[in-house]
Amino acid sequence: MTYKLILLRHGESEWNQKNLFTGWVDVDVNEKGAAEAVRAGELLKEQGLLPEKLHTSLLRRAIHTAYTALDVADRHWIPVERSWRLNERHYGALQGLNKSETLEKYGEKQFMEWRRSYDVPPPPLDKDAEFSQWNDPRYADIPEDERPQTECLADVVVRMLPYWESNIKPDLAAGKTVLVTAHGNSLRALVKHLDEISDADIAGLNIPTGIPLFYELDENFKPVTKGGRYLDPEAAKASIEAVKNQGKKK
Amino acid sequence: MTYKLILLRHGESEWNQKNLFTGWVDVDVNEKGAAEAVRAGELLKEQGLLPEKLHTSLLRRAIHTAYTALDVADRHWIPVERSWRLNERHYGALQGLNKSETLEKYGEKQFMEWRRSYDVPPPPLDKDAEFSQWNDPRYADIPEDERPQTECLADVVVRMLPYWESNIKPDLAAGKTVLVTAHGNSLRALVKHLDEISDADIAGLNIPTGIPLFYELDENFKPVTKGGRYLDPEAAKASIEAVKNQGKKK
Repeated sequence: MTYKLILLRHGESEWNQKNLFTGWVDVDVNEKGAAEAVRAGELLKEQGLLPEKLHTSLLRRAIHTAYTALDVADRHWIPVERSWRLNERHYGALQGLNKSETLEKYGEKQFMEWRRSYDVPPPPLDKDAEFSQWNDPRYADIPEDERPQTECLADVVVRMLPYWESNIKPDLAAGKTVLVTAHGNSLRALVKHLDEISDADIAGLNIPTGIPLFYELDENFKPVTKGGRYLDPEAAKASIEAVKNQGKKK
Repeated sequence: MTYKLILLRHGESEWNQKNLFTGWVDVDVNEKGAAEAVRAGELLKEQGLLPEKLHTSLLRRAIHTAYTALDVADRHWIPVERSWRLNERHYGALQGLNKSETLEKYGEKQFMEWRRSYDVPPPPLDKDAEFSQWNDPRYADIPEDERPQTECLADVVVRMLPYWESNIKPDLAAGKTVLVTAHGNSLRALVKHLDEISDADIAGLNIPTGIPLFYELDENFKPVTKGGRYLDPEAAKASIEAVKNQGKKK
């Protein structure tokens, strides 16, 4: 008996395109992202990996991606659970800023530390700043001392894991094929846990948008194959290489 | 303290347009229906009736309508519960048939009895017929002796009411503004219950597509105003008149 878990990072968003830090800002997928979601649904259908339960973040780009992919896979009707614990990493005071301009302003060392260090968060975002979600009703249930104004990846791990334990694992244990539609960093946090990746090594891991990543888990919820399997391995490889080369250019 | 309930019938579907009996066949909304869903979301937003919990059927046209309306109202992130108990009436052997052809074949008396009598269902649909949902995995959890092969409105009332009692009322009692996105007949069944409409009089009640119907309920879950209030009363009146006149022409 193994468990079936599918991870799906939302398709490209309006702000990916504009090169802005997004975090908890609730932008939608763009046209390319919507097409990626369709393709994700086709892959699920073609490979007979039909989700029986969906978990999403509270952000539009993940909800839209899941809606589209499941509609294409004829699984729009499955039960859904949503949680802020699956949200993208809160990008603090960087939310809404242009990435190139930020790099220029703060220099590469500071920039890369904010983007890729495991435990250094950007400065906190003011509660009443333009791109703050402090007063957004969807987060009203989060106690103030847990409601983030900035996060590093370590913070994401800490707030994501309780949801994995209490909400996702029980669905897997019940024998359901589970789809988690979320974000680059909430999924990196989950993969870090599943594959037991060190705090240092997680910096090198990128998850491509819109390509379902399938994990078969054993009875201890450990991956049968480390790293899982992308449903379109060629596309995933190309996307991961492209991100690496971006890094080299800088 | 009053409770806030919003009912929304899905927008026009692909088969409304083709004049086919639909029932449990899982067709999508058409372009007009998608536009109706956008308008529904705008009405919710303009009038500050922001849902905090969504209940839908398991059918694509309702799920799509809810997704679009909530996205427009910036409420895409609220919790969702779905149930077959909110599905359209199962139309039995009529599913997939053309309405005009059926009228011609069986005559007006039989036709109207199937469409509008409270307690006479059409003949059952064969389990392996083209438009049967008997083996659809989404209904696998319904015990076989409850899984419909045809339904009259009385049957819809019987299978819908337990969901009203056990799933919708508790959300209202918790103070949540509840949106129920469903179908002509599952919503007629609910309105019949709320407004205490007789078995005879319910035949005359039509609920227009895509216009939110708001009920304020008292502490006994009885409407403060019978019939509720459409968020666009002019459009609702026009739509109801149009349906009445259709009937007269026949």
